[in-house]
Amino acid sequence: MKNLNKYVYSFGGGKADGNESMKVLLGGKGANLAEMAGHPELHLPVPPGFTITTEICTHYYKNNKKYPTGLKEQVSRAMRQVEKLMEKSFGDPANPLLVSVRSGARKSMPGMMETVLNVGLTEKTIPGLVKLTANERFAYDAYRRLIMMYSDVVMEKAQGIEPEDGMGIRKQLEEIMDGVKKEKGFKSDTDLGVDDFKRLCSLFKDRVKKVLKKSFPDDPDEQLWGGIGAVFASWNGKRAIAYRKIEGIPDEWGTAVNVQAMVFGNMGETSATGVAFTRDPGNGENKFYGEYLVNAQGEDVVAGIRTPGPINKESKSEHNKELKTLEEIMPKVYKELFGYQKRLEEHYKDMQDIEFTIEKGRLFMLQCRIGKRNGPAAVRIAVDMVKEKLITKEMAVMRITPAQLDELLHPMIDPEAERDLKPIATGLPAGPGGGVGMAVFTADGAEALAKEGKKVILVREETSPEDVHGMHSSQAILTSKGGMTSHAALVARGWGKCCIVGCSAIHIDDEKKLFTAEGKVVKEGDWITLNGTKGNIYLGKLPLVEPDIERDVYFRNFMKLCDAVRRLRIRTNADRPEDAIIARKFGAEGIGLCRTEHMFFDPARIKSMRKMIVADTLEDREKALAELLPYQKEDFMGILKAMEQLPVIIRLLDPPLHEFLPQEESKKRELAQELGISLEKLDGRIQKLHELNPMLGLRGCRLGITYPEITKMQVQAIFEAAADLTLKGVKVFPEVMVPLVGSQAEIKDQHDIIKAKAEEVQKKYKVKLHYMIGTMIEIPRAALVADKVAEVAEFFSYGTNDLTQMTFGFSRDDIGGFLPKYLEKKILPKDPFQTIDQDGVGQLIAFGIERGRRVRPDLEIGICGEHGGDPDSIKFCHGVGMNYVSCSPYRVPIARLAAAQAVVESKKK
Amino acid sequence: MKNLNKYVYSFGGGKADGNESMKVLLGGKGANLAEMAGHPELHLPVPPGFTITTEICTHYYKNNKKYPTGLKEQVSRAMRQVEKLMEKSFGDPANPLLVSVRSGARKSMPGMMETVLNVGLTEKTIPGLVKLTANERFAYDAYRRLIMMYSDVVMEKAQGIEPEDGMGIRKQLEEIMDGVKKEKGFKSDTDLGVDDFKRLCSLFKDRVKKVLKKSFPDDPDEQLWGGIGAVFASWNGKRAIAYRKIEGIPDEWGTAVNVQAMVFGNMGETSATGVAFTRDPGNGENKFYGEYLVNAQGEDVVAGIRTPGPINKESKSEHNKELKTLEEIMPKVYKELFGYQKRLEEHYKDMQDIEFTIEKGRLFMLQCRIGKRNGPAAVRIAVDMVKEKLITKEMAVMRITPAQLDELLHPMIDPEAERDLKPIATGLPAGPGGGVGMAVFTADGAEALAKEGKKVILVREETSPEDVHGMHSSQAILTSKGGMTSHAALVARGWGKCCIVGCSAIHIDDEKKLFTAEGKVVKEGDWITLNGTKGNIYLGKLPLVEPDIERDVYFRNFMKLCDAVRRLRIRTNADRPEDAIIARKFGAEGIGLCRTEHMFFDPARIKSMRKMIVADTLEDREKALAELLPYQKEDFMGILKAMEQLPVIIRLLDPPLHEFLPQEESKKRELAQELGISLEKLDGRIQKLHELNPMLGLRGCRLGITYPEITKMQVQAIFEAAADLTLKGVKVFPEVMVPLVGSQAEIKDQHDIIKAKAEEVQKKYKVKLHYMIGTMIEIPRAALVADKVAEVAEFFSYGTNDLTQMTFGFSRDDIGGFLPKYLEKKILPKDPFQTIDQDGVGQLIAFGIERGRRVRPDLEIGICGEHGGDPDSIKFCHGVGMNYVSCSPYRVPIARLAAAQAVVESKKK
Repeated sequence: MKNLNKYVYSFGGGKADGNESMKVLLGGKGANLAEMAGHPELHLPVPPGFTITTEICTHYYKNNKKYPTGLKEQVSRAMRQVEKLMEKSFGDPANPLLVSVRSGARKSMPGMMETVLNVGLTEKTIPGLVKLTANERFAYDAYRRLIMMYSDVVMEKAQGIEPEDGMGIRKQLEEIMDGVKKEKGFKSDTDLGVDDFKRLCSLFKDRVKKVLKKSFPDDPDEQLWGGIGAVFASWNGKRAIAYRKIEGIPDEWGTAVNVQAMVFGNMGETSATGVAFTRDPGNGENKFYGEYLVNAQGEDVVAGIRTPGPINKESKSEHNKELKTLEEIMPKVYKELFGYQKRLEEHYKDMQDIEFTIEKGRLFMLQCRIGKRNGPAAVRIAVDMVKEKLITKEMAVMRITPAQLDELLHPMIDPEAERDLKPIATGLPAGPGGGVGMAVFTADGAEALAKEGKKVILVREETSPEDVHGMHSSQAILTSKGGMTSHAALVARGWGKCCIVGCSAIHIDDEKKLFTAEGKVVKEGDWITLNGTKGNIYLGKLPLVEPDIERDVYFRNFMKLCDAVRRLRIRTNADRPEDAIIARKFGAEGIGLCRTEHMFFDPARIKSMRKMIVADTLEDREKALAELLPYQKEDFMGILKAMEQLPVIIRLLDPPLHEFLPQEESKKRELAQELGISLEKLDGRIQKLHELNPMLGLRGCRLGITYPEITKMQVQAIFEAAADLTLKGVKVFPEVMVPLVGSQAEIKDQHDIIKAKAEEVQKKYKVKLHYMIGTMIEIPRAALVADKVAEVAEFFSYGTNDLTQMTFGFSRDDIGGFLPKYLEKKILPKDPFQTIDQDGVGQLIAFGIERGRRVRPDLEIGICGEHGGDPDSIKFCHGVGMNYVSCSPYRVPIARLAAAQAVVESKKK
Repeated sequence: MKNLNKYVYSFGGGKADGNESMKVLLGGKGANLAEMAGHPELHLPVPPGFTITTEICTHYYKNNKKYPTGLKEQVSRAMRQVEKLMEKSFGDPANPLLVSVRSGARKSMPGMMETVLNVGLTEKTIPGLVKLTANERFAYDAYRRLIMMYSDVVMEKAQGIEPEDGMGIRKQLEEIMDGVKKEKGFKSDTDLGVDDFKRLCSLFKDRVKKVLKKSFPDDPDEQLWGGIGAVFASWNGKRAIAYRKIEGIPDEWGTAVNVQAMVFGNMGETSATGVAFTRDPGNGENKFYGEYLVNAQGEDVVAGIRTPGPINKESKSEHNKELKTLEEIMPKVYKELFGYQKRLEEHYKDMQDIEFTIEKGRLFMLQCRIGKRNGPAAVRIAVDMVKEKLITKEMAVMRITPAQLDELLHPMIDPEAERDLKPIATGLPAGPGGGVGMAVFTADGAEALAKEGKKVILVREETSPEDVHGMHSSQAILTSKGGMTSHAALVARGWGKCCIVGCSAIHIDDEKKLFTAEGKVVKEGDWITLNGTKGNIYLGKLPLVEPDIERDVYFRNFMKLCDAVRRLRIRTNADRPEDAIIARKFGAEGIGLCRTEHMFFDPARIKSMRKMIVADTLEDREKALAELLPYQKEDFMGILKAMEQLPVIIRLLDPPLHEFLPQEESKKRELAQELGISLEKLDGRIQKLHELNPMLGLRGCRLGITYPEITKMQVQAIFEAAADLTLKGVKVFPEVMVPLVGSQAEIKDQHDIIKAKAEEVQKKYKVKLHYMIGTMIEIPRAALVADKVAEVAEFFSYGTNDLTQMTFGFSRDDIGGFLPKYLEKKILPKDPFQTIDQDGVGQLIAFGIERGRRVRPDLEIGICGEHGGDPDSIKFCHGVGMNYVSCSPYRVPIARLAAAQAVVESKKK
């Protein structure tokens, strides 16, 4: 640990050693307590206390669970200060001070760590408390609470004692209490009287000694240090470790410990406790919103034994509308609280989540922090606060996470309905949102049922291009294999469709048309519900909440804020006019990737495509290509028209040809017949196309170079479509993209063919076309020789899927064999196909941009890989100076947000 | 063309406008003529003449076959100078000057371009020549030669006239001449008298006019310019273009034209012509060696009508030992010639190939150039010349090409036997040298026959690791598929075995055990001969010439010269002790790559290996690994011992596991039985290992990270072997190499396992081992983050095969689908798997070295890909500062040479 001698930071009495900016050292809770207590703008009534820093936690774990010398002294000095402010003494039999001991990490880890209340209560101090409160029942109730918490948290958990019969001490003490209640015929804890509590305390202490082989400590200092140790121990509890792993919180951060004078909301009818938000966290409305309970402690509110009342009429709901509001029963205190919350929001310039306690009519502020909110609320609050001039546009765009924005874009399972349900299986969340439908196991079946108006979910081991019609007909897609960039995932994201992939917990039996998971059987036609945001699969129908972004004025205004801040342009990856239109609605400023190969899977076209592929001679190939030309032209007309006025990058044929060939025997036979050749001959040609590593074989521009006639047909279709539209007065900007280029010679070869065809078409149609010729940068070598490539290419589009595959030497299709182990062992921090690997792939990208722009300063550069929709990757793209990112239509708003955040973040640096 | 006004360079009379350094402008022949004529050290009797520069050729083709203005004037001025020196006049009826018109490019293109002799002979000048020579027969003979050459070269070829019946004019004139001889009953041209020649001239001219529709020109200037044009035209003749393509000579170089006064070796018994070498080009012996013919012209020597005599007794051979030597019949002229050749060699400091003519007792030097020589001669000449202090070590190493050195290392087909044979097919020359054996179509068959003492050649479509035993038993290997880096090629080169791959001209019928090529059928057991240096396949048995480098003192001394010059160390790729021993003999200074996977294909081991692979549990896997441990240890003992005192890099398991699994149904059944599981279960496990792109799948360190127990077993075997040997007093230096690393985390994971095992073994054996832990750099990302990798790795070995695959996105196995087209279209200048792509892959290599050394200045860096044996690539490795290259044993001498050449070449720059 650093050579700092200050381990303990005091707060209270209008002063504080720390402040809100010291979260790293004091934890979130400690820093906010200091801010509330000490900042002159706030000056709130906070019960005095002190914070032991996170550095002590780190020291504790680095030094075999020992504290640094000097800590004890600093703690007792801080305790003296609390005693002075409270005019009580810790352990004083006549006038005892009680304290709470709570955790507080840099980032909130709700419920993951431990708390001990009422510390300082012993046989000796109980009489003092009785005297102070004039309430013996209250004192023994507090004592039994202390025993229950302490024996559980400090004596059992923190010592790592495993209960023999699996039943922990807390549970045992609860059973004793239930026994006493049953014996007396009581229904509620409130029925218990002072003698009952006295008896319970005695029974509890006996049981603790018997089970844990140790007496409950009767010394306040022992209790205090036991509590502190338990909080530190809970940092490395199983639950906390698991939570940190999920949330990406480093183990080294450690937790602080907050020791604070107890105040009691359970001292009768003028006492109360409550939680509130400065705005509605459910929808963002600007109203003070909260709940309270009279004569209760904080834990009672959480426990949900009594229904809390609304703090004001704005907070009334169906559940609590009959109850009195705090404003009604304690108008003065409410007014005070209302003032404080306003002060807090103005001070923090964000919606606050606050906890308060009223002890005998006196208001204490126990906690404040940034309030959690859902997506719609986050958007509304940000937009409103800009309007109120509380925050700037830049601050507003930083307030919404991409995941929150995503909530607005997809139908979601109603959170209420999902809350306590256990999924039957969990897979990879490949397409966000919720989907409800009947399980169907074939693409044809899905399409047929959908035509009858049924809602279906296609369930497959994996999907292939042959399943696309069935995928399109489905509400959602579920696969048991494949990863986040598998065919199913790519297609689903493209359509904004709910999708779960790689769910290895389900076992599909295609023949019997069913799948099993955790012993449950789902047959064709059975209803299931998918949560594609989380990857959860549920049995039955759950209700969905539908988004309506077009009518959502807050969404639209928030997007305008993003647009005003961002520099990157946002394009979309769309192969069909329908997708292009959706993307335009979401704000796409062009198409960054229109794949031409998907166009060939239509049954009407695949035949000609297959003829082309198995053609033996140039002549046959050209004949088949001539059949495809009108289809291609029609496709391009559609997409160029949908994107009128905007640029459209069309990529020439990319995948290995064998992807278009039929796999099944029957379809092969059909094809052979159609082609008028024998099955053997067809098999021979298919065999010839077989490759050991097709990803690195005859594909991309290698196709167009080997068979120039393919390129010629495709660009003829593009330019004729553009010419037709231009003659009709439609302004179009086609940009022809050559895939898989690795050298200048390759792009030059294709460039010359494309250029010649463009001239030919322009002459024929007597129009001037505005077009560009460019290339994908997806082969590592292309980035290395980008200067040479840019001498020919007018634009670069980074194909980061392939670039990642080749830079890592990872086949996306086969990564399942080792990626899970790699992530588990932290050999990879993240799946590099989801977020750009900045250290490796990123170097190549930056290198290519620098070299490309060196020879062609106005080179248009973008990204069209899956990373184009990933916020972290978008920020990287901004940083390296790309002109645009291109992503699937439903990611366009996310990209607009991430692009805006990139500007703000880069300014901070 | 450059703005130079000098188009014509004169030589003769002890002076010259040009010199030897001006080959680019004057061509090789013109520059050497100028040097011989004009250099004060030489001052040789060269017939005067002039050279029209190569720039005129370029101009000619760039300007629609037009000459620049001023050329004609410069030519006639130069001609006047020749006339003056010769005291004759071009076209003068009384005293005519005749000239030759010859091509001369920067680099010799023997026989590819045209020559016209006796230019200037017309009806008008014949009487003058008769008078000058007092020999009418000579004059008409000269005239008929002019008509034959001129009508062919200038009137037919240069005009692009295609003979109607496929029979060119030259052939027709030859037939006329044969007819006259037959009519007269003559056997030889020498029987023809003056009248015969007169008649022939007349008949020739008639035929020329009839066939070519043009009279033979009777104007000396027309003849001269016709000749010049024909030489330029021949630069773009079909043969010349084809030759340039093979030799890599750029089309833009162009040819010069040399016009030179004719001297005649056919003017009677005191005239002669000859060719000679300053040393024996067949074995390099330091003796003046040549042949001559009395009363003959140069073309007669080439035509081989009469057997030429030896110029001295040192030049006598079986064929000509009965003939008189030039030394005997013209001692004075011989002495003069001997002096000139000595002067030339001393001047040029290299063996010279010279042409001379003696006209009536007067010696003329017509040409000199660096003499071509075979490999053994080249080595001997270089070694001798260093000894004679004629050249430096550095010059010596530049005198031998890697291909020449290679000739010394392999048995070769006797060049005499092969000279006029036509191969039945040609494939890729994957393993140099010659091989003779009976064709066999299965590995088992090959092994069986070899055991009977038969010489066999294994013929397969492709080979796989399962064929290795049969390949080893064979004299040579022939495949119809695969490229220069296919399995067959790699294995064969490793063993220095003759090998031809990718010979698509042969069609193998495995069932019938035969192959066909060009309609010929080769059945199992039929003899064939392979020339693996050229890729030629012959029917039958051809004699082989065996090398014996151990006794070859010139070879050894030459290697010492290389070693004295080079900086790079040379290691070898060897998997077996036998290979290591061979490599050591060839001068290997360590092992750069010992692949451990090849060790598993032994029938005794493959079973355990397969058990390991299909194991379901860690326990089963560990059991199978325990079976493999003693084998591995034994292997490492052998190889470490063979390389005592030298470092040995051992690579951990690299290939995808499914490579080890059986393919055939019967072998699968066998394995299932051995494993005691059902065939279905085995099939299921095999299916699970299937990958779409295995090259980018679960292999390399991904195996060791996923299954750490594999790494543990392998390094235990390595370190126990090293410990055992160390205890026996054998000094060993194992270097453990982790393959396919792409990040620091990967090498760190494996490093820690290896390190721990090393400590464990050292403790157990109580020895201190000298070892290193390093990594392959073969993933592009590894080069990009080499600084991070070098924090852990103690050495880098560039695996340029994989690095090339991933940097280009080319699968070596599938490159056949487009590489031929790429090379044909010049999209790739060379196969990047043969010679490192310096522009792309080379950048990554240089980048990785720079970054790696930045954090670890003493980082040991080498290359172990196939490129380690490629001379151009070795020079690149020198340039980027590697410590060593590693290549197959038989390439070690080549690598030593290339490494030395790299030093000299880099000094030049």
